[in-house]
Amino acid sequence: MTVRVGVIGTGMIGQDHIRRITQVLTGGAITAVNDVDEARAGQVAAGLPGASTHKTAADLVADDNVDAVLIASVGAAHEEQVIAAIAAGKPVFCEKPLAPSSAACVRIMDAEMAGGRRLVQVGFMRRYDAGYRGMKQALADGSLGAPLLMHCAHRNPSVQPYFTTEMTISDSSVHEMDIVRWLFGEEIVATTVLTPRRSGNAPAGVQDPLVLLLEMASGALVDDELFVNARYGYDVRGEVVCETGTVSLADTSEVTVRSANQHGGRIPVDWRDRFIRAYDLELQEWLDAVAAGTVTGPSSWDGFAAAAVTDAALTALETGQRTAVTMPERPGFYAEVS
Amino acid sequence: MTVRVGVIGTGMIGQDHIRRITQVLTGGAITAVNDVDEARAGQVAAGLPGASTHKTAADLVADDNVDAVLIASVGAAHEEQVIAAIAAGKPVFCEKPLAPSSAACVRIMDAEMAGGRRLVQVGFMRRYDAGYRGMKQALADGSLGAPLLMHCAHRNPSVQPYFTTEMTISDSSVHEMDIVRWLFGEEIVATTVLTPRRSGNAPAGVQDPLVLLLEMASGALVDDELFVNARYGYDVRGEVVCETGTVSLADTSEVTVRSANQHGGRIPVDWRDRFIRAYDLELQEWLDAVAAGTVTGPSSWDGFAAAAVTDAALTALETGQRTAVTMPERPGFYAEVS
Amino acid sequence: MTVRVGVIGTGMIGQDHIRRITQVLTGGAITAVNDVDEARAGQVAAGLPGASTHKTAADLVADDNVDAVLIASVGAAHEEQVIAAIAAGKPVFCEKPLAPSSAACVRIMDAEMAGGRRLVQVGFMRRYDAGYRGMKQALADGSLGAPLLMHCAHRNPSVQPYFTTEMTISDSSVHEMDIVRWLFGEEIVATTVLTPRRSGNAPAGVQDPLVLLLEMASGALVDDELFVNARYGYDVRGEVVCETGTVSLADTSEVTVRSANQHGGRIPVDWRDRFIRAYDLELQEWLDAVAAGTVTGPSSWDGFAAAAVTDAALTALETGQRTAVTMPERPGFYAEVS
Amino acid sequence: MTVRVGVIGTGMIGQDHIRRITQVLTGGAITAVNDVDEARAGQVAAGLPGASTHKTAADLVADDNVDAVLIASVGAAHEEQVIAAIAAGKPVFCEKPLAPSSAACVRIMDAEMAGGRRLVQVGFMRRYDAGYRGMKQALADGSLGAPLLMHCAHRNPSVQPYFTTEMTISDSSVHEMDIVRWLFGEEIVATTVLTPRRSGNAPAGVQDPLVLLLEMASGALVDDELFVNARYGYDVRGEVVCETGTVSLADTSEVTVRSANQHGGRIPVDWRDRFIRAYDLELQEWLDAVAAGTVTGPSSWDGFAAAAVTDAALTALETGQRTAVTMPERPGFYAEVS
Repeated sequence: MTVRVGVIGTGMIGQDHIRRITQVLTGGAITAVNDVDEARAGQVAAGLPGASTHKTAADLVADDNVDAVLIASVGAAHEEQVIAAIAAGKPVFCEKPLAPSSAACVRIMDAEMAGGRRLVQVGFMRRYDAGYRGMKQALADGSLGAPLLMHCAHRNPSVQPYFTTEMTISDSSVHEMDIVRWLFGEEIVATTVLTPRRSGNAPAGVQDPLVLLLEMASGALVDDELFVNARYGYDVRGEVVCETGTVSLADTSEVTVRSANQHGGRIPVDWRDRFIRAYDLELQEWLDAVAAGTVTGPSSWDGFAAAAVTDAALTALETGQRTAVTMPERPGFYAEVS
Repeated sequence: MTVRVGVIGTGMIGQDHIRRITQVLTGGAITAVNDVDEARAGQVAAGLPGASTHKTAADLVADDNVDAVLIASVGAAHEEQVIAAIAAGKPVFCEKPLAPSSAACVRIMDAEMAGGRRLVQVGFMRRYDAGYRGMKQALADGSLGAPLLMHCAHRNPSVQPYFTTEMTISDSSVHEMDIVRWLFGEEIVATTVLTPRRSGNAPAGVQDPLVLLLEMASGALVDDELFVNARYGYDVRGEVVCETGTVSLADTSEVTVRSANQHGGRIPVDWRDRFIRAYDLELQEWLDAVAAGTVTGPSSWDGFAAAAVTDAALTALETGQRTAVTMPERPGFYAEVS
Repeated sequence: MTVRVGVIGTGMIGQDHIRRITQVLTGGAITAVNDVDEARAGQVAAGLPGASTHKTAADLVADDNVDAVLIASVGAAHEEQVIAAIAAGKPVFCEKPLAPSSAACVRIMDAEMAGGRRLVQVGFMRRYDAGYRGMKQALADGSLGAPLLMHCAHRNPSVQPYFTTEMTISDSSVHEMDIVRWLFGEEIVATTVLTPRRSGNAPAGVQDPLVLLLEMASGALVDDELFVNARYGYDVRGEVVCETGTVSLADTSEVTVRSANQHGGRIPVDWRDRFIRAYDLELQEWLDAVAAGTVTGPSSWDGFAAAAVTDAALTALETGQRTAVTMPERPGFYAEVS
Repeated sequence: MTVRVGVIGTGMIGQDHIRRITQVLTGGAITAVNDVDEARAGQVAAGLPGASTHKTAADLVADDNVDAVLIASVGAAHEEQVIAAIAAGKPVFCEKPLAPSSAACVRIMDAEMAGGRRLVQVGFMRRYDAGYRGMKQALADGSLGAPLLMHCAHRNPSVQPYFTTEMTISDSSVHEMDIVRWLFGEEIVATTVLTPRRSGNAPAGVQDPLVLLLEMASGALVDDELFVNARYGYDVRGEVVCETGTVSLADTSEVTVRSANQHGGRIPVDWRDRFIRAYDLELQEWLDAVAAGTVTGPSSWDGFAAAAVTDAALTALETGQRTAVTMPERPGFYAEVS
């Protein structure tokens, strides 16, 4: 069975997912596209034999040739689009953030719960990375004891001119917010944002680096260095410290070069270089689940939790204070963190 | 366009390629299968909606629903099947060895040249491994100078009871024979086989490990340790030594564990664990090339060269002498080694 | 010239330094010993041909056969002994802490400054470790830009039954307090102590691990994980994050073993295993400096600064608050941090 | 007790050992020097309070102020000088080679055996390197099974203008000849020399690199890459392949730098940088043994064995043939390889 996918949002991310489904993955086909920029949607559709273009996201969702919906529009549009897909009873993959506010995420969850079955997968692709999967497996086998601490670093070589300090939290650290919830199997209950010495390479008005402290429900503590003008490469690192040992992400260079009194390996140049396989696996697993009539992967609850922690972290950044994360009890409907 | 693939040989390797084309890769579908064991072919076809079963390989090749042929039968059957595909003008992917003798490989090349265009890709999948690709890129950029030496090791944890010393050469070292030709961009001109102290874990009658010396046309020298009962893991290693530096395959563990006074990473358990991505990329590239009406990857000439070096190495093993490789001049039709 | 050393305190550390001077290093000889436990002093002296035993530390300091004094007594006794050596105009090596309170350290500095020349070296041996020296060199060459952050971890396999949470700060983290001052070339101005999830292996009443935050004068931020029941080994790690790159302590295993699907190296079992060379170099450099009539290495100011930061950290631990470090301006007499 | 050492040969190596004994090690003092260049000997002695200068090596050996003799003269002079020390009953440390011919080594052994006790230690300092010691320990603990193969590489950045292809064997590979005998605990019985593609950086008339094959008595096979114009650094590598695992020399960089899309460590610049600690330990152990009235370390037999293998390798280089090593049975006097 081929899953007929309708794509809402045909910008860079949307186009990349279209390329993935048509040229890399199996079991999916793009049958419909929509974008607020109709011309762009038309150009993209032109390269996709058999794909129609819809004036509105709602039309696309309603299309009988669409089995499942992939949302890659701007965050502000997500809520309405996801809820439309839920109303139509169609599985929906929504790029992060699920919605820009935790209140909006709550409305999405309410709609999904009202419908009685899970339909939403949120695009936290790090859960599909071989490194993080290796960490989770090492934690799961129990030989290291309980996790007590995690040290994270998230380094980008540079950022776009429009990047703000707040985006370091909402766009960058949100990946760690999700991954530590998944690795530790518990919620984040409080956060603090530290502002170290500023890099001379940070754009005017941007505080870079930041250090986030994330406190887990068990008391486990995560420190997350966010350094978005690190220059030297795209470098995501992590070490979970447990009672009797630790597990870290390893460097992933394929070769070692010995030259000029150095032995060394390559550090990725950007997120694509580092995580392309995770994106592939994420979407393949979504297609497979849709075809099987199931839903796997990060849920609306995970999208909500990330939004709630982001809210707290933005407050913590503004106030300089440790800030508790406000969350209701996890509904039984969303049975587990992972 | 979906490439309609007919598969000849539905044993372990054939089934694995069928799984790959139907569940992992894009752009291909299995439309026909054939096996000397008709029952097995029938069982495999039963799991493939729309796939027919053919009594003979020739029937499969002739099937109008087959655009391209994938051969995973026993080596002795390859010659006839590949030549049939060539005669039908259909692209053919043939698992290694192209044919069990260099004479048979010559007949295949003659048929292909007579047909006037390249149709054959041979299954040397290491060329698609990220590690070897990184090595080739490092060599190509020129900063390390000319390659002078390569040190290889090819270690299997254990082998099947029917494994023989000769198979270490024909089945295991053949991978290095191809990869060094590709990395160095030149032919192997002579070989010597050394028989070191035998492991107590080697089955009766099997000399394990072996060390092959491969002399390249330029004088560059390759030593290749073949150790098929190495117990500790599946470990393929390589270092090319150049005039001003070296490049090696790196360890590929995704995580590092610190525990019990050790820091360590994982070594693959078998070839699948180590090379599964290379197999995926190899076949995806084949499907893409077929769809585009081109041929890429290892050619019949590469299959022939591996057979010629294997012949020489088997003689070297038997005689204990350095043995020259007998090869005609490379036909212009097969323009370059890589 | 042989430096004639008088040793005050002949417990484990004192005996180890005696062994070092007599069996490993050059240019020194033990000519006198003193201990509050006279019997122990006598036993130690018995193994040292030509060494006398003194009833009091003051007698030892006054001995004409003593050129320089090495203090390895309990911390509470240091102040009086160091000041006695200063009064006698004799160079003195004092194990950390210089004195148990910053006030006592001030009195030592006052005495030393009154004497008009530096005589005191404090036993912060990490400055002599090849790893930290490599870090300092990498920072000094300027190619990485300004240091912004440092991530440290200080892990012991286990601690003695009498160990307390406070000792994690006064005995363990004091090493990082000194080393970051030396690496960054600036003072620590404030500190916060975080108390993560407690390890089930921590003794009753002990909070383990701890995370210290150390804020440098420039705004650079240091996080220091202190985990004294880490079980898996003695593991000291550090990464300085600069504007255009980072430098980390590397693993120091001499060999790599490949076995049982793992490649791995050794992690030290205890501080001796990890830092024995640093202790040797520290004391050799002291002997060389004494012989040359100079003083090098960590000064009384460094001892004082460590005590001042320790005081602040103990307050921070007790109050749970960020605590400023109270320090006077650095006297010109103690010209520079390093 | 201070061992009074007389040094024969005050060139670069001799002066380095003098520096070591006077400035680094404990328990030794230089009391006499001799050199064929009397002026040089005088200059060196001038810097050594209490050291006398002798016109001849024989006079130095006879000096009552000399307890033990250190020979760092040219190889051709060693035989006479070592035998003189033996005749005087004085312990002697002789730099490699013990003597330039295996016949001369036999005469030294005969003299030593006639004297009835071991007096000679030969300067194979790699046995004191932490890396090789770690390898030997890993082999000794038995968990890896019997050693079957060893892969070695010995790379120098460049060589002096007077360097010849033969010196690659007599000066460079002699280190591996000794170390593999020590690691494996057995003799080398045959050798072959291979001449790969020549580096464009090799001086005129020099074949570089070379590959030596060394066959051990047990059948274990060693390949040794010798590349003395490797440019990129001084890099000594080794991996012993055993029945169930391998052990390798690890890279020894103290720090890892992440910069410019690379993570990397330092490779030593020269032999001093790589092996200085081994030289220190070697000579300290000699001084300690002399003081204790014992002899440890590489013996005359080890010096002889290296000479015998060197002879065979030079023949193998000249003839291009596998060449057996000619050795008598090991005298009981020299009880074991290590």
